Amino acid sequence: MPLLAKNDVLAKILAASRDDLAAYEHLATEELEILIDAGRMVLLANPAHPDVLPTLIGQPGRIKINANIGTSPFICEPGLEIEKLKAAEAAGADTIMDLSTAGDLDAIRRAMLAASRLPLGTVPIYAVAQKHANAGGDPADFSAAELLEEIAKQAEQGVDFMTLHAGVTVRAAALAGEGRRVLGIVSRGGSILSRWMRKHDRENPLLENYARILDICRRHNVVISLGDGLRPGAGADAGDAAQWEEVVNLGELTLTAWEAGVQVMIEGPGHVPLHLIASQIQAAKRLTHFAPLYVLGPLATDAAPGRDHISGAIGGALGAYHGADFLCYLTPAEHLTLPDLSDTHEGVIASRIAAQCAEAALGRPWAVARERNISEARAALDWEAMAVAALDPQIVRRRRQSHSHEKECAMCGKLCAIKMKEL
Amino acid sequence: MPLLAKNDVLAKILAASRDDLAAYEHLATEELEILIDAGRMVLLANPAHPDVLPTLIGQPGRIKINANIGTSPFICEPGLEIEKLKAAEAAGADTIMDLSTAGDLDAIRRAMLAASRLPLGTVPIYAVAQKHANAGGDPADFSAAELLEEIAKQAEQGVDFMTLHAGVTVRAAALAGEGRRVLGIVSRGGSILSRWMRKHDRENPLLENYARILDICRRHNVVISLGDGLRPGAGADAGDAAQWEEVVNLGELTLTAWEAGVQVMIEGPGHVPLHLIASQIQAAKRLTHFAPLYVLGPLATDAAPGRDHISGAIGGALGAYHGADFLCYLTPAEHLTLPDLSDTHEGVIASRIAAQCAEAALGRPWAVARERNISEARAALDWEAMAVAALDPQIVRRRRQSHSHEKECAMCGKLCAIKMKEL
Repeated sequence: MPLLAKNDVLAKILAASRDDLAAYEHLATEELEILIDAGRMVLLANPAHPDVLPTLIGQPGRIKINANIGTSPFICEPGLEIEKLKAAEAAGADTIMDLSTAGDLDAIRRAMLAASRLPLGTVPIYAVAQKHANAGGDPADFSAAELLEEIAKQAEQGVDFMTLHAGVTVRAAALAGEGRRVLGIVSRGGSILSRWMRKHDRENPLLENYARILDICRRHNVVISLGDGLRPGAGADAGDAAQWEEVVNLGELTLTAWEAGVQVMIEGPGHVPLHLIASQIQAAKRLTHFAPLYVLGPLATDAAPGRDHISGAIGGALGAYHGADFLCYLTPAEHLTLPDLSDTHEGVIASRIAAQCAEAALGRPWAVARERNISEARAALDWEAMAVAALDPQIVRRRRQSHSHEKECAMCGKLCAIKMKEL
Repeated sequence: MPLLAKNDVLAKILAASRDDLAAYEHLATEELEILIDAGRMVLLANPAHPDVLPTLIGQPGRIKINANIGTSPFICEPGLEIEKLKAAEAAGADTIMDLSTAGDLDAIRRAMLAASRLPLGTVPIYAVAQKHANAGGDPADFSAAELLEEIAKQAEQGVDFMTLHAGVTVRAAALAGEGRRVLGIVSRGGSILSRWMRKHDRENPLLENYARILDICRRHNVVISLGDGLRPGAGADAGDAAQWEEVVNLGELTLTAWEAGVQVMIEGPGHVPLHLIASQIQAAKRLTHFAPLYVLGPLATDAAPGRDHISGAIGGALGAYHGADFLCYLTPAEHLTLPDLSDTHEGVIASRIAAQCAEAALGRPWAVARERNISEARAALDWEAMAVAALDPQIVRRRRQSHSHEKECAMCGKLCAIKMKEL
């Protein structure tokens, strides 16, 4: 199933960017081809996205960070979303997802595509559900044809990757049904599809029309991010039958996509207690044939709303160390409200801390060098070199402002351990 | 080596508080006695500390959190330190350490003992080193007698636990010497003792006078926190010969203390890469005979100054899951300056998140119940119940303020997954 031979658009993008990509990922160009062909790495870049920066996702390349932004019915300021996009990029995000569900969604998406060189992802079902909800109808009133049209339109607009919850089957959703979970279905896409299937008494429209979707995605090199519509929303639900039934489905959908020359990522949990993270990541990777795994957190505790960037960094560090390839940020606003600009920054940095922990532990050369550089700067009490090596240079400079005339840090002063050796 | 039979003061405190302690720790009273006798759990409470809350440290009891506060030569506001003490207690800290190195240290310590029911810890060597540094001399000019006097005085004042770096021997310090580490000795106490040993050409005064120190500590039930003066200050230094040489020494010192009827905790690293945390915790626990392990972080990356509470929460969650008993907080100010009030709060909460992740994974009943409660509150969209179950209720209420009239969260609005099931 060599993907490149089946996907001209992808092959062309890779040919044009392969040297830059190889240098950035510290991998040989031959290795990139092998990994993309095997589906272990995906190359995000829709040729219709102006000036997009082709971006690889998949270890042993760099672990990537996604930042979710977008309007909601309660907070709908498209200009602010563009500012968040810029803040996320400045903080070091590798991709952006537009999860807008209010306002002129086409205009917002086009503005984001124009504003960002980073690959942009979307969840097309939001647009069709929101259209019907806004018209006073049921979010699940849309037709399969409308959903396909939306996917095709967004592919033409330049969207680089799309979350499609094609694994939420009638059978899988039933396993997450009444009385089986503490928190039921918490994925918006998963819950809309579950509602749609019950309302229309039909199988998942993304699954029934998968061949047509693959055709669209191949033509535009849209990477399918197979959504985890049944991901656990509580640690107590982690690893239940619904979750694994969906993962098994995603594994099958992955093989079908590869057969059709379409690149695939897998979305993973979610809320997962600490002791289950390693086994869940390993099992999900195996069942989905080692396609890149894109995790939301995972959150290692449910109990820290207001600080879910920390709960997510704990789970993300461990998850990435055990094989997750792509970390979706969590911000301090998660579970409470939409992130503001500061939340966006904090979320990206927390995810980068998680990735750095994992990559340093895995011995990745860029991560090991960063650890070494900052430690050597500390040994020299060289504050500017510390800032340069830090994941967030600005906060180092800001907190040192009132101490700029002091060589030691204000914690130890004269009892500085570093200076104590100068006898 | 049943400790209780050798330590009347300890036995008396336990007798008076055993029922409350057992209820709080979800352990049978007989189990507490067995664990304290075996040195696996310590009971912090110096009878001279007015109204001290006797506090147990050691799993399978609750993982405890310490907050470091105290003045420094660059920021010396004793009143602010009392405010930090209150902020740490309000955020859920279990103990406080006074690391002050500027101002009237006796007055500051007495004020903290009076202000806090939480057990108070200190590092007595700071006081004697600072006295000589302030007088224009070398911090290492103090005599062994001065150090012993300081320890005795603080024990009489009511200090509940003291960090004593008795394991920093000439041999161990040499293993961390020039050219052997990226970052040398980063513990203040360790660096002062190393300097003292070189300057006076003598062995560690805490080691040479250990029997007298044990006598003082037993009489006041001061728990010795055997300091990790040679802890790694960089991931690159983690697990080197100096670190383990000291841990071996601490194991011997633990046995000697138990023989003398004195309770002991062990201080652990430090900066430890993610993949080494489990093995380091396990080895340290074994070499120190399963005495409670008190870790600073560990920091799973060096590269996030300004956000070390996150790096520390990642390492702390994993460390506690693998057996660490007591987490010293790290604040966003770590490595840069003294924490302010907000940093103190953030540091305690981040450590509590780490402890919650570990305890939920270990199946501790109080932690599992908290996870369950918050998830059920989410299923009911009951925001106040979420706040009550959250580790930081205030931030939940604060961030929901502008949404108090809305049932759903502002992220999803009409597309709320929880409400999507209501067909």
